[in-house]
Amino acid sequence: MTKTIKRIVLASRPAGAPTPSNFRLEEAALPALPDGQVLLETIYLSLDPYMRGRMSDAKSYADPIRIGDAMVGATVSRIKQSRHRDWRQGDIVVAYSGWQSHAISDGSDLRRVDPAIAPISTGLGVLGMTGFTAYAGLRNIGHPKPRETVVVAAASGAVGSVVGQLARIGGARAIGIAGGTDKCAFVKNELGFDTAIDHRDPDFARQLAEACPDGIDVYFENVGGAVWDAVLPLLNDFGRVPLCGMISHYNDNAAAEPSIDRLPASMKVIQQKSITVRGFMNVEFIDQHPAFLEQAAAWIADGRLKYREDIVDGLENAPAAFIGLLEGRNFGKLIVKVSGER
Amino acid sequence: MTKTIKRIVLASRPAGAPTPSNFRLEEAALPALPDGQVLLETIYLSLDPYMRGRMSDAKSYADPIRIGDAMVGATVSRIKQSRHRDWRQGDIVVAYSGWQSHAISDGSDLRRVDPAIAPISTGLGVLGMTGFTAYAGLRNIGHPKPRETVVVAAASGAVGSVVGQLARIGGARAIGIAGGTDKCAFVKNELGFDTAIDHRDPDFARQLAEACPDGIDVYFENVGGAVWDAVLPLLNDFGRVPLCGMISHYNDNAAAEPSIDRLPASMKVIQQKSITVRGFMNVEFIDQHPAFLEQAAAWIADGRLKYREDIVDGLENAPAAFIGLLEGRNFGKLIVKVSGER
Repeated sequence: MTKTIKRIVLASRPAGAPTPSNFRLEEAALPALPDGQVLLETIYLSLDPYMRGRMSDAKSYADPIRIGDAMVGATVSRIKQSRHRDWRQGDIVVAYSGWQSHAISDGSDLRRVDPAIAPISTGLGVLGMTGFTAYAGLRNIGHPKPRETVVVAAASGAVGSVVGQLARIGGARAIGIAGGTDKCAFVKNELGFDTAIDHRDPDFARQLAEACPDGIDVYFENVGGAVWDAVLPLLNDFGRVPLCGMISHYNDNAAAEPSIDRLPASMKVIQQKSITVRGFMNVEFIDQHPAFLEQAAAWIADGRLKYREDIVDGLENAPAAFIGLLEGRNFGKLIVKVSGER
Repeated sequence: MTKTIKRIVLASRPAGAPTPSNFRLEEAALPALPDGQVLLETIYLSLDPYMRGRMSDAKSYADPIRIGDAMVGATVSRIKQSRHRDWRQGDIVVAYSGWQSHAISDGSDLRRVDPAIAPISTGLGVLGMTGFTAYAGLRNIGHPKPRETVVVAAASGAVGSVVGQLARIGGARAIGIAGGTDKCAFVKNELGFDTAIDHRDPDFARQLAEACPDGIDVYFENVGGAVWDAVLPLLNDFGRVPLCGMISHYNDNAAAEPSIDRLPASMKVIQQKSITVRGFMNVEFIDQHPAFLEQAAAWIADGRLKYREDIVDGLENAPAAFIGLLEGRNFGKLIVKVSGER
């Protein structure tokens, strides 16, 4: 029986971009399993941009991770031992074990994964919270109509890839923005977006305008920064902007350097074009999750919804992978394979 | 019979704040009245912040005023002569004659005013487009629930004064922001807001926080600038921000000076608190205008909806009054009395 667990804790808070020294790999003793609880073994750990926010002690919707505590995160885990009537040893679940090889849960945060539908790692991506974020934001805020133009950045990523494919399933045009030739080729050729545009191209803004001859009806915002500036003049009257993240700003320092204040120009466009900007987190729409799972599984089965996973081996490699995620170095949903056991 | 008309034309485009030299008072010959048209005599001219936008040649939702053309604007006018079957001499109408003593209309842009309901000048304010903007923004975007907190800036002004009173009629708390002791006293004592706060007070942000112990559920945005910065940290989860103007930025130069970029911090709050920011113009909701007129007239009659007008005498004084409006020097809905005839 396992007596120790491995985990990665927050060693110090980053100033700007996280560095390896902000993390520390530890071994800890595994406490005895109390009655009514289960012991989880992490198979896959999800790495997601929101974790950057939890590393800071700025006030936010969620409490910051305390120094010395394990990094948080969703996992696909196997129940290694159960003292809970509803869960059996061997069950595969989505859990929230964090950056740890094992965790103990009372079962309230677990969701069963059916390995028959798709590889279990998809429970962290296309069939997990990132896929559901795309679904919920499009369905409840973006609601693109057939033939409207939907633009999404980080289009090869976990959320963006689903946004564009769902837009197309609904009959809209999907324009994806990604970093680099390989990602753009994947977005257009594999995911089937109408166009993919490389935001690293100096000519990016002009190419985006060219790809949107009828303007932009829905901009699914998950990056911020220069992409927003290129999107803004193209937004149509009554455009919708579901806003689920601003990854380009997650590493900003509190003491910003002098620059141009972009807020007034943005607000002016929002006003004059009757734009809706709506922040959201997927939990708001969690009652739609069963319907999402059923639909998404069907679309995966018939080939209309594709996904790509970027799987990194070994918990000890999670910090470097996470740092790379914030720099856009991953290609697809970033997942750490923590345990080889199935 | 009138043979010449007076009008104020756009002499040059302002760089930043308009100056008197951007306007020119002219006399022009009155053309003969064609069949099917009416001759309007302007009684009251409405001065509104949006006119600043029309003085620039930047691309916008409406075409810019051409150099040498009359300034645009809504008026309450009397039909002086009619060659139109639907309109009679002496009828009082809301028209869009612009900064002119007289105008000719084919009737399509006229709305009859009933002098029995309220003074006819209210057709430009509390019973006009500014009152309707407040109504439409609150009803369709802000939709405050009873006991929620509604904050509005320029609270003694044409839109803000109605926003707060409608919020209170619906059972919400209304916090008004205004410039100076007199305006604040008016907002609290005459209009009946729960609190009024002077944005010129160096302690403004702290006072606003104190006035909103349960946070802000609806911020009706019509000013931008420093007020937004004070509101942002107080917004509650799922807060709503109807956005109908940014008067504090209307005089911004195109070449902005280096400053702090406030956009990322704003977007971060919008995302993390699931805020809705929704630009709008009242025309979007124009089908609700008859219901608004009926309700607002009833509220005025029973004393629940009060208004204040700042009436300036003489068309020649319109430029100075308009320049003052952009500086917040008016106190109530700014109207120019163009003709004494009733």
